[in-house]
Amino acid sequence: MHRADTNRPRPPAARQATLREHNLALVARAVFEAGGPCSRADVASATGLTRATVSTLVEQLLGARIIAELPPLAPQRAGRPAVPLVPAARTVVGLGLEVNVDYLGCRVLDLAGAVVAEHVEPDDLHDCDPSVVLGRLGRLARALVAHVEEDGMTVAGATLALPGLVDVRSARLEVAPNLGWSRLDPLPLLGLDTGGDARTLAVTVANEAKLAALAQSARGPDSDDRPRADVPDTYLYVSGDVGIGSAIVVDRRIFHGRHGWAGEIGHVVVDPSGPRCRCGATGCLEQYAGKDALLRGAGLAPGDATSDLLAALEAGETAALTCLRRAGTALGSALADYVNLVDIDTVLLGGIYPPLLPYLRAPVEAELRSRVLAAPWAALHVDAAPVDHHAALTGGAREVLRGVVEHPTRWVEG
Amino acid sequence: MHRADTNRPRPPAARQATLREHNLALVARAVFEAGGPCSRADVASATGLTRATVSTLVEQLLGARIIAELPPLAPQRAGRPAVPLVPAARTVVGLGLEVNVDYLGCRVLDLAGAVVAEHVEPDDLHDCDPSVVLGRLGRLARALVAHVEEDGMTVAGATLALPGLVDVRSARLEVAPNLGWSRLDPLPLLGLDTGGDARTLAVTVANEAKLAALAQSARGPDSDDRPRADVPDTYLYVSGDVGIGSAIVVDRRIFHGRHGWAGEIGHVVVDPSGPRCRCGATGCLEQYAGKDALLRGAGLAPGDATSDLLAALEAGETAALTCLRRAGTALGSALADYVNLVDIDTVLLGGIYPPLLPYLRAPVEAELRSRVLAAPWAALHVDAAPVDHHAALTGGAREVLRGVVEHPTRWVEG
Repeated sequence: MHRADTNRPRPPAARQATLREHNLALVARAVFEAGGPCSRADVASATGLTRATVSTLVEQLLGARIIAELPPLAPQRAGRPAVPLVPAARTVVGLGLEVNVDYLGCRVLDLAGAVVAEHVEPDDLHDCDPSVVLGRLGRLARALVAHVEEDGMTVAGATLALPGLVDVRSARLEVAPNLGWSRLDPLPLLGLDTGGDARTLAVTVANEAKLAALAQSARGPDSDDRPRADVPDTYLYVSGDVGIGSAIVVDRRIFHGRHGWAGEIGHVVVDPSGPRCRCGATGCLEQYAGKDALLRGAGLAPGDATSDLLAALEAGETAALTCLRRAGTALGSALADYVNLVDIDTVLLGGIYPPLLPYLRAPVEAELRSRVLAAPWAALHVDAAPVDHHAALTGGAREVLRGVVEHPTRWVEG
Repeated sequence: MHRADTNRPRPPAARQATLREHNLALVARAVFEAGGPCSRADVASATGLTRATVSTLVEQLLGARIIAELPPLAPQRAGRPAVPLVPAARTVVGLGLEVNVDYLGCRVLDLAGAVVAEHVEPDDLHDCDPSVVLGRLGRLARALVAHVEEDGMTVAGATLALPGLVDVRSARLEVAPNLGWSRLDPLPLLGLDTGGDARTLAVTVANEAKLAALAQSARGPDSDDRPRADVPDTYLYVSGDVGIGSAIVVDRRIFHGRHGWAGEIGHVVVDPSGPRCRCGATGCLEQYAGKDALLRGAGLAPGDATSDLLAALEAGETAALTCLRRAGTALGSALADYVNLVDIDTVLLGGIYPPLLPYLRAPVEAELRSRVLAAPWAALHVDAAPVDHHAALTGGAREVLRGVVEHPTRWVEG
């Protein structure tokens, strides 16, 4: 909804049907955002709807298996006991799909936030054949869908995460440099619309950093890696790897920009006289704080793991410590630009950064303090992203489930 | 609506009253966005509402003097002639207020887009007393309001533009360096809520570059400086002066960020080894492409005018030409960061930049081509901002009138 789009459709005229849809979504959202079981009376007070209206709409959402009832509580006073309402478990589910440089996989999340099934295959996918790899992912997805459907669940849709420039409107991938892919339409290659079971799954595609960003928020369906009570609804998410991706999250939604390409922080200028970047320009952030630059600066080989770098840092090796300080200054400079331009004061660092944060934090925060114009008036927060493990799979499944909660009407019979 | 705000209110439950409000706003917007006179049938087809509903709502908007009828057209075929509807002229009006370093002033715009009154006083307001200057602006505003009310118009509200960090939620000014103002609540100092006429005018406050940005869009109420048919609904606006401000406009609305401080491009890092900026950091864009930097680089004095710089450029003076090339490269580098981070492909340059654009364009575009990751797939446009002359006054008045069109109910009797 925060997408920049000059051709956005005019909002439809409100009629009785849309009035009901609006209120149905309002009730669904109230249950999902309650942060715990809530009664019909709680929903009425949260939405401003009458108790009678809430009761009718709750019945519809129960029938659609979007919400569920827990056993009644013992009544506090005379009268009928309150029946707690919660998001439904293992009913309507969302599917996250991903191809990345070192794995491909799928994950199924239910509305209660649990991972009900997943299948991840580690692999080296640098410069791979898109039709082979997407075909393989499609087969994994079909098997996973068949599996959860046997258990009585309904897959509401899927989101494919790719590490590259994805045009979210046309579902076209312009380029994914590390996969060696360019200018292709990935969705047909999944083969999900021509499955032997004669059903079509609605699939969309987005950049993996954007979807990983959506997995960080504390509210909404999700699989928890760590406690995330502190994550606000509006933040910048920055994911370090060979490339450095990021996303602007406003009110728990991605700010996509015109095409879905917002957040290319890896190519923000740190120093115009700096090293040549693989993008052709000089002094991009990636050349200071990307994974290859960190390993190289610490005297390690490009194929080494972040754990090797961490070992060098813990051993107090000068080259590694100097390199991390330089990376932190570069990252802080680029983040200062980011904060100056979009005025968002929480930054979550994901990908390879969380274990490196003790070495990055001081130079990052020094740059933010000296370069963010509003720093004297705004408290800036830099933290490790709480969800890291295949976060784009979780974010993609969440996108599907958000659609269910915001547009529950299609799941309500009649 | 694109403001980042973690505390945004839950949308209200839709009831019959909000249904009518929604449709009333839909009809008002259809008339305002038609781009010319339109009939009730046009409105019905644009909104999806029935002809009968449209007729009822049109009567209410006519009664509220938000829209008006033109003389009927001769009928094309048998039947009643179509009556063209247009935004109403000289009825409900919006007031823009501004204090800037070299003037203060007010401008009144009507819903048809015409300036119906204005009063601008040039002055040197560097390091001035806020209570004296805002009191003076308040008196000008009261006089202008009294004047247009004598002519039967109703002032719907006002927006105050200030050159500094304004928290749009608390209506507090954190700092306006060139005025020498800091940490104050500007609105009470206008004295508009204690006028001798015992009425209160609703006033909001925002950063002047943000409001100037809103004046650029081709649609909506406005006073035209130049034809603006080419301005899309989503763009970056960058205004050069001693400081360099900017705004992110998405679907004709400002992306404010958390506090209203988004767009501080003047302090984006161009070169960390560059000159010290007045903000305390080094190598900020302002030190390359701000007005003082341009004059200094061209061998002119800080007090000189842009016209002196232009004369030096037209005379082919080497220092001036070299300085502009360097400024263009710096501006292009900062704009490349901006475009990489927010994925918006139209940049409008205002303030002192439009006459300098012939000298800036080549280096700006060269940087964009080499630094914007998506440049091969997106056509980037850099143009002179079409509205320059006191654009924040127009933008502020427009903000008020947008509120009238989007929430017409309070103007409809009964």
